[in-house]
Amino acid sequence: MSVDRRTQAQRLDAADPLAAFRDEFVIGEPDLVYLDGNSLGRLPRVTRDRLRAAVDEEWGVDLVRGWDRWIALAREAGEVLATGVLGADPGEVLLADSTSVNLYKLAVAACDARPGRRVIVTDDDNFPTDRYVLEGVAAARDLTLRVIRSDLDTGVSIAAVREALDDDVALVSLSHVAYRSGAIADVDAITRAVHDAGALMLWDLCHSAGAVPVPLRSAGVDLAVGCTYKHLNAGPGAPAFLYVRSDLQAELRQPIWGWFGQRDQFAMGPAYDPAPSMDRFLVGTPPVLGGYAALCGATLSASAGIDRIFAKSTALGDFAIELFDEWLAPHGFALASPRSGRGAHVTLHHHGAWQISQALREASVIPDYRTPDRLRLGLAPLYTRFADVYEGLDRLRTIMEAESWRRFSANRSRVT
Amino acid sequence: MSVDRRTQAQRLDAADPLAAFRDEFVIGEPDLVYLDGNSLGRLPRVTRDRLRAAVDEEWGVDLVRGWDRWIALAREAGEVLATGVLGADPGEVLLADSTSVNLYKLAVAACDARPGRRVIVTDDDNFPTDRYVLEGVAAARDLTLRVIRSDLDTGVSIAAVREALDDDVALVSLSHVAYRSGAIADVDAITRAVHDAGALMLWDLCHSAGAVPVPLRSAGVDLAVGCTYKHLNAGPGAPAFLYVRSDLQAELRQPIWGWFGQRDQFAMGPAYDPAPSMDRFLVGTPPVLGGYAALCGATLSASAGIDRIFAKSTALGDFAIELFDEWLAPHGFALASPRSGRGAHVTLHHHGAWQISQALREASVIPDYRTPDRLRLGLAPLYTRFADVYEGLDRLRTIMEAESWRRFSANRSRVT
Repeated sequence: MSVDRRTQAQRLDAADPLAAFRDEFVIGEPDLVYLDGNSLGRLPRVTRDRLRAAVDEEWGVDLVRGWDRWIALAREAGEVLATGVLGADPGEVLLADSTSVNLYKLAVAACDARPGRRVIVTDDDNFPTDRYVLEGVAAARDLTLRVIRSDLDTGVSIAAVREALDDDVALVSLSHVAYRSGAIADVDAITRAVHDAGALMLWDLCHSAGAVPVPLRSAGVDLAVGCTYKHLNAGPGAPAFLYVRSDLQAELRQPIWGWFGQRDQFAMGPAYDPAPSMDRFLVGTPPVLGGYAALCGATLSASAGIDRIFAKSTALGDFAIELFDEWLAPHGFALASPRSGRGAHVTLHHHGAWQISQALREASVIPDYRTPDRLRLGLAPLYTRFADVYEGLDRLRTIMEAESWRRFSANRSRVT
Repeated sequence: MSVDRRTQAQRLDAADPLAAFRDEFVIGEPDLVYLDGNSLGRLPRVTRDRLRAAVDEEWGVDLVRGWDRWIALAREAGEVLATGVLGADPGEVLLADSTSVNLYKLAVAACDARPGRRVIVTDDDNFPTDRYVLEGVAAARDLTLRVIRSDLDTGVSIAAVREALDDDVALVSLSHVAYRSGAIADVDAITRAVHDAGALMLWDLCHSAGAVPVPLRSAGVDLAVGCTYKHLNAGPGAPAFLYVRSDLQAELRQPIWGWFGQRDQFAMGPAYDPAPSMDRFLVGTPPVLGGYAALCGATLSASAGIDRIFAKSTALGDFAIELFDEWLAPHGFALASPRSGRGAHVTLHHHGAWQISQALREASVIPDYRTPDRLRLGLAPLYTRFADVYEGLDRLRTIMEAESWRRFSANRSRVT
């Protein structure tokens, strides 16, 4: 049977229209099965070269004159993200700050735009920083944070959102793809319900940008944020992005009045006068190296095409679930992701998940461990082969059969 | 006379104990006189090599495992800044976000710590982003922003600060070194006066960190922020730093409750519980490349020694002012910096400053133009030679004698 599965993986790879994209990335250790899902995407070759030129030739030689070029990076990367990755319009997306800071800026702006409404809604399986930032915004304004109960394996339901909505809700903020299960939320239906209640909708796209189509324009989404270091492959700590629907830009004001948000930044005038465009959501001097990396990464994803990326991600996940059913369910694993409607990762539940994740690393397979007892397998479509899924799960099966994972301590240390 | 001045410059360079530090930097165009003051410091060789390794070997090969190392960068760079650059204690400084975002976080935290007090004080020549951010904090809380009149050439006086203080003031925020004139504010006296009024003091160290001794500990400063891309040579858009005096850390809470500020970040628990230390002032995932560059740059400055750096900066400025008196005053320039008590730049006033700055660029001299009519000459002590001061001002004298600057348009385009 395992020979059949291996052949199946080879056939799937041979038929994969995105197979050649793997060559666009640096593959450091050929034997490593990289199923990180996806705290850090791989290094694109073009980014390595671009960063070298930016350091050696631009910073090293052009010096401060480099800003003539660098000042446009936030907008340039934003255009590629808007039109090539996120289904938004030009002028609606910018690179800026971290996801957490952007979430804060947009959440405050949204609450200011709905004065008198006293509730922010999120769900209990939203990513920690989202829950904390919203908790902080609510605390500072004496608002209520209404927390929807979410299903750990299947995500937040439209029914649960509807139940949380009333005319006291100012803002609803949820993740498009759940970081634990990979469940895809129904952006169209949820955004419509939120608008029917007169509230604003803020989507966190960290696990969907570059992996899943994001219908910002067609769903009429108000606000969104996301990172670029996962499926956009922009490197560790690369800047995040934020989206504000064009007709809301002049109406909303974010709270951190930095000079990059100023209408005429270099006039250095006496009073803050926010730009009439998306620029008002900028704050301070932007990171140039991360900006180049985000531009390169977004361009690569856009050239592959989000629909093709999503189709491959789904096929990779389906294959992983087939192998799970056959090889892993007998060893006490349970599927902790939806069988359909997933982002680019598949999550398995096992009471020994932490120890198993250590055993996998020893076997040159890198998964994510996620609390409390989950193994998250990232399937980044641009460079993950069906053969990698086969190889990674085959090594996992071997670990389970030999029970070698029991040698590892159950004490959890820090986990990224 | 000009031969004498050239000889003087050569003698000063020969006696300079920091002369060898120039070799630590990439010098792209040997003929370029780089007097940017200082929107962007030069590229240290060690940083070029470190960034290449971080991209090629860590991101490219270690992948997500790199976070085992990267997670410490904000703290590690903070320790070097605290103990080697800023006169603070270990555990009081961290790398994070941009200067503007840090200023916002600390200003809100300070106002929260002085409930009932309704005034924030700053000065009218503070850097624009400082004024705008404080204006935003005041607007959101319905506080008054009290703006001290500052002297454009000599900075903010202790008398003016005293006049602005009363028991309604929550926070005073000023720049240590004025970005236009280079005037050094009296940190000791001003901080003491602010404390006497029961308010908190927040210093912006952008133009002093790495150039001027900063007596944070000895003056009992409460809060500070600053950037690393000027005199710390960390590259375009490198992360900023923030300082909170150790005894205030548990008391103050910043408003952006991101997961990097959480006590047990990777437990990913349900509610925000800020770290009991400086970590609570962190927000989102930190930029790794900028973090390495800041660590390298801070280490280089610390190894040169801030007292030696400041002594050379003063000597470079004194020499520039001698040449100004002799060569430039006759051409209608006026000195717009203090003759003593300056940071690492000297600013000249001339009604044609914008055109002159263009003519200088054409002559391979890079100064800064600063509104409304100022030419700022940066004298970064780690790589600027007395011969560069001679050469740059000699070319400027030639431009003035030939009146060649009048060929340039007086229309100002964007200026960084």
